[in-house]
Amino acid sequence: MADQLIPRREMQFQLYEVLNTQALCEKARFEEHNVETFNAVIDMAEKMAEELFLPHNAIADKNEPTFDGTKVSMIDDVKKAFDTYRESGFIAGHFDYEDGGMQLPVTIMNACAGYFLAANPSSTAYPFLTAAAANVIKHCASDEIKNAFLSKMLSGDFTGTMALTEPHAGSSLADIRTNAKPQADGSYRIKGSKIYISGGEHELSDNIVHLVLAKIPGGPAGVKGISLFAVPKYRLDDNGEPKERNDVTLAGLIHKMGYRGTTSTALTFGENDDCHGYLIGEPHQGLRYMFLMMNEARIGVGYGAAMIGYRGYRYSLEYAKDRTQGRAAPNLAPEDDPTPIINHGDVRRMLLAQKAYCEGGMSLCLYGSTLIDELETEEDSDKRTEISQLLDLLTPVFKAWPSEFGPKANDLAIQILGGAGYTREYPVEQCWRDNRLNPIHEGTNGIQALDLLGRKLWQHQGKGLDVLLRRVTSDIHNAKTPRCQTLAKKLSGYLDTLGGLIEQAGVDLKSDKQSVLLTNASCFLNVFSSCVVSWIWLRQANVAELALQATPGEMDADFYQGKLAAAEYFINWELPLVTRDIEILKSQEPSCDNVKPQYF
Amino acid sequence: MADQLIPRREMQFQLYEVLNTQALCEKARFEEHNVETFNAVIDMAEKMAEELFLPHNAIADKNEPTFDGTKVSMIDDVKKAFDTYRESGFIAGHFDYEDGGMQLPVTIMNACAGYFLAANPSSTAYPFLTAAAANVIKHCASDEIKNAFLSKMLSGDFTGTMALTEPHAGSSLADIRTNAKPQADGSYRIKGSKIYISGGEHELSDNIVHLVLAKIPGGPAGVKGISLFAVPKYRLDDNGEPKERNDVTLAGLIHKMGYRGTTSTALTFGENDDCHGYLIGEPHQGLRYMFLMMNEARIGVGYGAAMIGYRGYRYSLEYAKDRTQGRAAPNLAPEDDPTPIINHGDVRRMLLAQKAYCEGGMSLCLYGSTLIDELETEEDSDKRTEISQLLDLLTPVFKAWPSEFGPKANDLAIQILGGAGYTREYPVEQCWRDNRLNPIHEGTNGIQALDLLGRKLWQHQGKGLDVLLRRVTSDIHNAKTPRCQTLAKKLSGYLDTLGGLIEQAGVDLKSDKQSVLLTNASCFLNVFSSCVVSWIWLRQANVAELALQATPGEMDADFYQGKLAAAEYFINWELPLVTRDIEILKSQEPSCDNVKPQYF
Repeated sequence: MADQLIPRREMQFQLYEVLNTQALCEKARFEEHNVETFNAVIDMAEKMAEELFLPHNAIADKNEPTFDGTKVSMIDDVKKAFDTYRESGFIAGHFDYEDGGMQLPVTIMNACAGYFLAANPSSTAYPFLTAAAANVIKHCASDEIKNAFLSKMLSGDFTGTMALTEPHAGSSLADIRTNAKPQADGSYRIKGSKIYISGGEHELSDNIVHLVLAKIPGGPAGVKGISLFAVPKYRLDDNGEPKERNDVTLAGLIHKMGYRGTTSTALTFGENDDCHGYLIGEPHQGLRYMFLMMNEARIGVGYGAAMIGYRGYRYSLEYAKDRTQGRAAPNLAPEDDPTPIINHGDVRRMLLAQKAYCEGGMSLCLYGSTLIDELETEEDSDKRTEISQLLDLLTPVFKAWPSEFGPKANDLAIQILGGAGYTREYPVEQCWRDNRLNPIHEGTNGIQALDLLGRKLWQHQGKGLDVLLRRVTSDIHNAKTPRCQTLAKKLSGYLDTLGGLIEQAGVDLKSDKQSVLLTNASCFLNVFSSCVVSWIWLRQANVAELALQATPGEMDADFYQGKLAAAEYFINWELPLVTRDIEILKSQEPSCDNVKPQYF
Repeated sequence: MADQLIPRREMQFQLYEVLNTQALCEKARFEEHNVETFNAVIDMAEKMAEELFLPHNAIADKNEPTFDGTKVSMIDDVKKAFDTYRESGFIAGHFDYEDGGMQLPVTIMNACAGYFLAANPSSTAYPFLTAAAANVIKHCASDEIKNAFLSKMLSGDFTGTMALTEPHAGSSLADIRTNAKPQADGSYRIKGSKIYISGGEHELSDNIVHLVLAKIPGGPAGVKGISLFAVPKYRLDDNGEPKERNDVTLAGLIHKMGYRGTTSTALTFGENDDCHGYLIGEPHQGLRYMFLMMNEARIGVGYGAAMIGYRGYRYSLEYAKDRTQGRAAPNLAPEDDPTPIINHGDVRRMLLAQKAYCEGGMSLCLYGSTLIDELETEEDSDKRTEISQLLDLLTPVFKAWPSEFGPKANDLAIQILGGAGYTREYPVEQCWRDNRLNPIHEGTNGIQALDLLGRKLWQHQGKGLDVLLRRVTSDIHNAKTPRCQTLAKKLSGYLDTLGGLIEQAGVDLKSDKQSVLLTNASCFLNVFSSCVVSWIWLRQANVAELALQATPGEMDADFYQGKLAAAEYFINWELPLVTRDIEILKSQEPSCDNVKPQYF
């Protein structure tokens, strides 16, 4: 089936009609690329995703990895897919030529990632985590560590993990207990337990490099005393080859509801006091190093949620066109033929909502990816500062909004399939289970709300907000047709209200209203992110209207009409839901703040 | 753990403080009962649910029934639980003494059902379906059929199913193809395929009586030509014992995402042209007979959704009190102790929302159950008519609202547990998977919306709505304290708006606006059911305020404060969400109606 994941027409629209990704080729870093090379890489990703990742997505779900006490086993298809991926050079796709990379923009890497994430998020996790860990090593580690690990990670001979969470502490990294004792040779001995470590054990690669947060005894309390270590599964011999088993053991596999193909592990470091770790960068800077990568990681989570949503959307769309049931007016007689269910209004509602959620989330996260590329390549330092401020501000939205609405899309896909959607004979239920992880990991959406309202808004003296508002206002002015102007006007009204809420929040955070405000932080995230996504949809609508004026062919015209329909749906159906949140925030509604534990 | 399912304090509140269930004992039908006998039955249900149903809920999920081509196997615990249930006489609980029943009110049977549904919805399905099928036979079948099947079903020696859906037709019963050819002996030969038949095959009982919708050749087209048949798995010998295998075969088990302990089957009737079926009642009246039971069945689905939601709510509540993570103001220093997560405002929000959803859904469906009891026992025929009209009108709400919000509650329970909630080591993810069935079966929620807006509102010349509004208005007047009056006033405002929407809908349904109105029917269902559930919460708040004035003990006072908090949460946080729906309906927003299939 052509276009069974993300239609190329859609990807082309986002990259070249909305985001102007081709402009990146004018930057020195990307000067050897052009639209043709971009598309060739996406072609390769699409083909690999469809041929090697998609076919075993459900098989891996049904046959999750097992641990016999010594070794983790999984179906062979995962290794086959992983090997082809790494041999194609994708892990290093974004890295410098001098690292053996392809020096591709993050935006193009994420365009590719979309196909893998829609096809098989579980198998995709192994190389993606490796690239993320390699990125930390590249930017923060000493040459010695880089020499030991980087090129082998970029080739996929070694894989990587991020080992942050501990059983007792969860999201509260201040409370981690894993410790790292300095040794005479400059290395450290690591001791502690980590949990929910994705890709923490498997036989896909020759070695696994865990990036472990731990505390060096005597350091500051809380987050200020966290350091970052590279802890390999196998220590390297003098030739840099993995040899002796390091004292990192798999305490057990965790059995998840979804994402079952990815091993989720409980790891024990230093059970025999012989776990060698190597400090990355300076002591006590571990969290800062991790957070250098956090914007990108959080965009990745949101984007993945949109892509899993997209898979379900496309499947339910095909189903709705194909499946006949009931009658559509005016042919309502028993002897009339049953009609494809897409002709039932409520089914179209569920399809249009999915389109609005998934293409909205996709466009949002590709926008975020472009900001990362611009940040990396912009030569004007003032502009770079602006981009950085905007990126920081929007990161909670990139993470939280699609990870809330991607699963909602999957829920609607199940509903369209009805009883069939509830069975494991169809793929939509797995999409829904897989996607449920995304509101949880990389900072729960509750934490994102606090991060936005309590911190990000006010960072850099609130300049990120100024940048955002300038950009939104510019697109509001770019709405030239009556349809787009109607949308722009609605968004304007909500933006004015949002401005008032932010002003009020600035005052309340310093008063005794702080508690109720932060308790209701999710309402603020709703208002803020719905405005942002409405803007993302207005941008798409503006492009579509302009394209329609140029009298495109029939298929393109339908495509652009679909964009307008989804934009109108979003701004007329989804944005007004935040009226509730606005009222909650304005009235400082105290129900959740006041309710006492004993009342439950 | 005491009260691990539904706290008895909560059940007592609903039954005896809100619904005045004890008043039913004044009716002749229930005159042998009193609060003590009611509570004794609930005690028994609670104990049985906790001891025999709850322990194997996760085990049955992990070890779903299998079919070896001849026989369906499942874990032994299911039969043990089923046998104890049937031996306790619960299947016949609501039936007449003369049928061997306990002649208990539906309200009390549903109070009991709550414990089973929260503990283990899958194993509960077998006896519940049997009682429902027996109910149809009792009310619609000839004495011959009753004599053959009824008492054996009520004892659980035989079980029952409802075989409506066919693979090609889904919800469109007009299009079923299963046919029934009359035979000289008065029986019929059934031929056709059914799908998603719960409990369609197993070894729990000596026989399975399928209630099958089929068409007698030569009958009217569409739904008017549907008849109902009793089709046993084994035909009975002259002594009424199951003997020869009837020609009903299991084409296969369906593998569901949740509810895995209940066999879901594809059944073939008459593969060898020898499937004997027995007409229930008159020919071509099959759908009417099924719909006689539909109000009760749909309340059952909604109630089950609320109860599965409740299980997750209680679990996440205990978790939130127990699990420490992060700090709460003013003790924010690293050296301060971590705090139970219930002290984080956003966690309390997620708990309060769950409480509002689940206790709202529970109260709503127990209210519906009381209507059924009143309908059965009211002697004044005018009053009986009113009750019947109200019951018809509210049935789509009883079914759809809790089946939308129960899963939402389960989603929040997962979020509170975070990473742990996403694993199969904790029960909340199973609750979420199990509950996802409820918006689909017994008429999808999209169908409920159409049923309400297109049919139920206008039935009986709209008198159901009059009855509802009188009752709501009465409770609005009963709001005597400032807190309740504030809630009542808000609800009043929405009711006025709802009245306007209904007036408009009456006009639009007869105009060219019909299509856009029905496409947006889900918005109407949202407005209508949110008003109804707000009323249900106002009723609870009124009771709580009155009780608080009587200065109850500390634990009771906390309980009533919790009721007020949840009522305020619901009316301040959930009801205003329908502002969006009101706008959609008022403006006849055309996005979903206008979007063309080729735009997707």
